[in-house]
Amino acid sequence: MRAVDLIQKKRDGQALNKDEIEWLIKGYVNGSIPDYQMSAFAMAVYFKGMTAEETSHLTMAMVVSGKTVDLTSISGVKVDKHSTGGVGDKVTLILVPLIASFGVPVAKMSGRGLGHTGGTLDKLEAIKGYQIERSQEEFVQQVQDLGLAVIGQSDQLVKADKLLYALRDVTATVDAIPLIASSIMSKKIAAGADCILLDVTVGDGAFMKTLKEAEELSQTMVSLGKEVGRHTVAVITDMSQPLGQAIGNRLEVLEALQIMQGKGRHDITDFICRLAQLLLKLAGQKRSLAEIKKHLTDGQALQKFEKMVVYQGGDLKDLYRPSKAKFVTKIFADEDGYIKELPALAFGLFAMRLGAGRAVKTDFLDYETGIVFYKKVGDPIQKGDLLAEIYANEKLSENLLTEFKKNVKIDKEEMKVTEILKIIT
Amino acid sequence: MRAVDLIQKKRDGQALNKDEIEWLIKGYVNGSIPDYQMSAFAMAVYFKGMTAEETSHLTMAMVVSGKTVDLTSISGVKVDKHSTGGVGDKVTLILVPLIASFGVPVAKMSGRGLGHTGGTLDKLEAIKGYQIERSQEEFVQQVQDLGLAVIGQSDQLVKADKLLYALRDVTATVDAIPLIASSIMSKKIAAGADCILLDVTVGDGAFMKTLKEAEELSQTMVSLGKEVGRHTVAVITDMSQPLGQAIGNRLEVLEALQIMQGKGRHDITDFICRLAQLLLKLAGQKRSLAEIKKHLTDGQALQKFEKMVVYQGGDLKDLYRPSKAKFVTKIFADEDGYIKELPALAFGLFAMRLGAGRAVKTDFLDYETGIVFYKKVGDPIQKGDLLAEIYANEKLSENLLTEFKKNVKIDKEEMKVTEILKIIT
Repeated sequence: MRAVDLIQKKRDGQALNKDEIEWLIKGYVNGSIPDYQMSAFAMAVYFKGMTAEETSHLTMAMVVSGKTVDLTSISGVKVDKHSTGGVGDKVTLILVPLIASFGVPVAKMSGRGLGHTGGTLDKLEAIKGYQIERSQEEFVQQVQDLGLAVIGQSDQLVKADKLLYALRDVTATVDAIPLIASSIMSKKIAAGADCILLDVTVGDGAFMKTLKEAEELSQTMVSLGKEVGRHTVAVITDMSQPLGQAIGNRLEVLEALQIMQGKGRHDITDFICRLAQLLLKLAGQKRSLAEIKKHLTDGQALQKFEKMVVYQGGDLKDLYRPSKAKFVTKIFADEDGYIKELPALAFGLFAMRLGAGRAVKTDFLDYETGIVFYKKVGDPIQKGDLLAEIYANEKLSENLLTEFKKNVKIDKEEMKVTEILKIIT
Repeated sequence: MRAVDLIQKKRDGQALNKDEIEWLIKGYVNGSIPDYQMSAFAMAVYFKGMTAEETSHLTMAMVVSGKTVDLTSISGVKVDKHSTGGVGDKVTLILVPLIASFGVPVAKMSGRGLGHTGGTLDKLEAIKGYQIERSQEEFVQQVQDLGLAVIGQSDQLVKADKLLYALRDVTATVDAIPLIASSIMSKKIAAGADCILLDVTVGDGAFMKTLKEAEELSQTMVSLGKEVGRHTVAVITDMSQPLGQAIGNRLEVLEALQIMQGKGRHDITDFICRLAQLLLKLAGQKRSLAEIKKHLTDGQALQKFEKMVVYQGGDLKDLYRPSKAKFVTKIFADEDGYIKELPALAFGLFAMRLGAGRAVKTDFLDYETGIVFYKKVGDPIQKGDLLAEIYANEKLSENLLTEFKKNVKIDKEEMKVTEILKIIT
């Protein structure tokens, strides 16, 4: 077999068979197939796609390219979740302890943020002492002991994805559904959980810009999960505005705590309850939204979260500490009406420039900075109302403030917001 | 500027500007842009093409990536020719001395063969002693002294092409018109001639499989030449059957000598006269076909050729020596009719397996092997007529002979052959 022939086959729109895909991934990981052939292949996939069979073979070839996590020693149905990323997305911080509070073990490996999107690991590291690096043995032990763990993705898992993702990132071949689906699902399958909830975000702050793309990705991933016997469901959720109130690592941790204390906004609280209901159902527990909301707001989820923080070395006192950002600028509304738009991408990039996110992978984060919104899309607003607070460690320029305000669109008409756009089972 | 953004721009079908293309090529040659980004870019070009402006910028960026040849010290209008390659294509061996016999200086750099296609350098090296490596100074001096030179492409010219061609070869990105056109024309422009004749072959033995593709490539190259003030013409010629009678290096040299002695087949003789007429016209000389044929067959072209061979170290006695192949197998016709098909690709690959061509770049050639056809497409044939001779250094298996015969298609109906399909000026 020659890599150039497989590239040409894909370029010409033909499907590769199982052997060919396995040979390609194995060769890429062992170094016999160089980056320049793999990037040309990825670009051909961008243009010509992959069949369901090809994507499935690719995913499994990637799974076996590294170690896999064996969770069988943990009793019960183990669950995992994944979000395709967004702005202000602190769902994992809340959903994981909430699910665990029902006795369902959650074993989750998370990633870091890049560009306008945040990452769960960064949010957890905003808590003093929190250790995200854990061996597989420690990971499994923690889930056995506590019923939950959120750690960093191990370098030993899905080696092909690590290589391939870095390559796609610099060759404009990230946005190909079969490559995205196999990247996500190979990691989820290798991580060993029985049930997988996929949160596929859609909107200007998300990877998927249209509902159509999000549906295609969701269908592909749900099929991949089912093929290997994992109960998988995808929820397509709105990412046209930031999720919840806060953007920024420390600020999002604080919002998560508020929600788990019953003091969060009702919309994100209800949204997380609905995700929890789906994931619990997947794990075989039928629970009412009222029951779930009780767990979320009466301290049961919070207790699980605190236990996890302590178990992973986090400082409980630091956990509740407010942001240390030096400059907190309040933004007030200039007119009456309803919030029409709070573009997630624009505010995600704004927070990134405050230090809350990374422009490039090697950037350092400022955990304390970010934005807290006091009004969200659909909310009525009156001139003079507090719209948002900007947390910064440098004084904000007039230009930045003007830019911030320009991005808040207020309209006279009331409008409806839908968080969950579609559920794909 | 970031390479990934330029790849994405092309991937999304947008045109790159002059600065962007220059930056890309300069970065690729100096090593700051890695192969894996260039191959992804090339694949995006394969799918999205390039505008005429982009192709022109790319060509000139490639020209300036290496040295260029200055032919100004040679008086007269200097000419060059290029063929996109084929099977049995010995045109350069004959056309170059023929043109030179009219006092028009020919300064030509040639390439080697790969796969089923032959290369002029290999054919010249079948002559004992012939040196294809010459410095630029020696090259210019020879054209001044003799009026003609055929040497190997210098490593110092168009460095970008050397790198890019090797990369395209292993990433299934060879077949993209803007990349083919810029590769050929950057070399022709860098080589310094005032007039360029492009022989664009079309058919199963050629790079271009359809007339439409050949026309597109021809138009693109002629425009590129004209843009930089080079008189350029493209001739689209048939490569559905091998050109002339012989395939194989020594055998093609012998056929070239026969043609220059007036003993060649009339079709290839006339074909070369027509090409010569076009090239002479480009150089400002209007000559009748009769005049040209006289030069070609009365020894004037041959004299120039012999002078070139001697000047470049070749042994005149060896030049006229027959093939030393150990086994010459005669193939006779099994039926009456007309030759309908002699597929160039199949016979090119057949000759390659005899050692006349290279499967991979590092293969050694057997200069003595090949095929001589005594009947060509359109010729009437009777059972028992000599069809061809196969020159080999190993005994041919029955399987090979059967395969050879299977590829010769004989039909009851007479058919017409057209060598020159179109002229693009």
